[in-house]
Amino acid sequence: MSQKNERVVEVFGLFIKHIQEFLKEAKLNHEEYTNFVDWADRLGRKGELPLFADVFLETHVLRAMYTDKPGTQPSLLGPYFIEGSPELTEKDGDALILTQRPDEAGEKMYFKGNVSSVNGQPIANCRVEMWQNDASGKYSAFDSDAPRYNFRGHFYTDENGNFEVRHIVPLPYSIPTDGPTGEFLEYTDQHPMRPAHLHFMFEADGHETLITQVFFEGDEWLETDVADGVRLDLMTKLEENNGRKEAKLDFVMREQ
Amino acid sequence: MSQKNERVVEVFGLFIKHIQEFLKEAKLNHEEYTNFVDWADRLGRKGELPLFADVFLETHVLRAMYTDKPGTQPSLLGPYFIEGSPELTEKDGDALILTQRPDEAGEKMYFKGNVSSVNGQPIANCRVEMWQNDASGKYSAFDSDAPRYNFRGHFYTDENGNFEVRHIVPLPYSIPTDGPTGEFLEYTDQHPMRPAHLHFMFEADGHETLITQVFFEGDEWLETDVADGVRLDLMTKLEENNGRKEAKLDFVMREQ
Repeated sequence: MSQKNERVVEVFGLFIKHIQEFLKEAKLNHEEYTNFVDWADRLGRKGELPLFADVFLETHVLRAMYTDKPGTQPSLLGPYFIEGSPELTEKDGDALILTQRPDEAGEKMYFKGNVSSVNGQPIANCRVEMWQNDASGKYSAFDSDAPRYNFRGHFYTDENGNFEVRHIVPLPYSIPTDGPTGEFLEYTDQHPMRPAHLHFMFEADGHETLITQVFFEGDEWLETDVADGVRLDLMTKLEENNGRKEAKLDFVMREQ
Repeated sequence: MSQKNERVVEVFGLFIKHIQEFLKEAKLNHEEYTNFVDWADRLGRKGELPLFADVFLETHVLRAMYTDKPGTQPSLLGPYFIEGSPELTEKDGDALILTQRPDEAGEKMYFKGNVSSVNGQPIANCRVEMWQNDASGKYSAFDSDAPRYNFRGHFYTDENGNFEVRHIVPLPYSIPTDGPTGEFLEYTDQHPMRPAHLHFMFEADGHETLITQVFFEGDEWLETDVADGVRLDLMTKLEENNGRKEAKLDFVMREQ
């Protein structure tokens, strides 16, 4: 039973065409090739392939797709997204509570967002998925003691496209450095840090799904983010308001 | 302690430059990217990354390195080479015996080779490493019941650059199809067969190491070798001579 996929044939053909150009220019020798394969084999066996791809390649996929298009720039999905997050229902005033632990450590904050279409209309009932790391710098479900879906949840915008969430200020963190990805960082003399960020995925009828991140003004890693995920329209500012930390950002989705 | 490697920086920079061109032309979307990463993660975790790279990429590395250069064309090292083969000493007449099993199944053959330099001189005392599959189509040490170094050995050319080996006619075989590499073959509608071949590695002072393969005229898989390893100057012909099967080929090594 054949499962031929014309798109795979097309994409792989183009990949080989450009790899041939790369090989011609890089003048890779056979020993360098076998060294690369040894490293890639260790990367793959350790399960670091998604990490490496998301940190070093995903940004180029996104830039090729979206640069110069209207609407909010996407940023990395990253390796820490998992399916099945709960719908958030518990509230602190108007804000949905993202954490599942009442005694959650970290600096409490409130984030307000608005989702609209490139046509200018607010998008009501947009499904918003949000995830972030905790005060230990870890994502739940990844080498973490937190409940599986801690700091993970989804909810829907109101009739004006608005939402508000209570959570904590995320932390800059280091990608794992103990495996082949860490070796690569040493070879290329790069630090392993990502600036603090919130992850969002927006889904709404008639619109392209928007996967993106929100960064904080003043973060020391913005300019040198190891994963090159920062975009100018993804910056927010943490402000003190009536004794609480608040931030906000508007998101604009492209029509399908 | 920094282990910065300028060559890795250079090669990765060129890789990204050409990948950006690829992404622009292929118009890869984000879902295709995540599908690719899922597949590559499974490939890596199953340990098939060297298999995939050697079958689908190594030929392009070799072509970029060697096409239009004098001397015997290299071919794939492939995923079935292992270090530490024994030196062959047992003989049948003038021919060194490659198998370690006296009752080895398969069609017995004798292979005569000559190794010379592009300058025309024979290369004496050239180290020759040889490996091949057995009558079950398997390589020792890879999912095989044979002794670890069966059909694997090394030896040295005589003062005229000659050598002779007794072994069996190798078999065409299928690369593994039960994992992500097999999925890729289905998507691209390719058969998994490689034509029968012998593996050789030649090492001699003052010369570039030559890694190559020898193929047999008349093999039904020559034109569509899944790994694209066949080169015109790597063809031999199996001939009946005094009641025994013989083949021969001359190899020419490049000076360093």
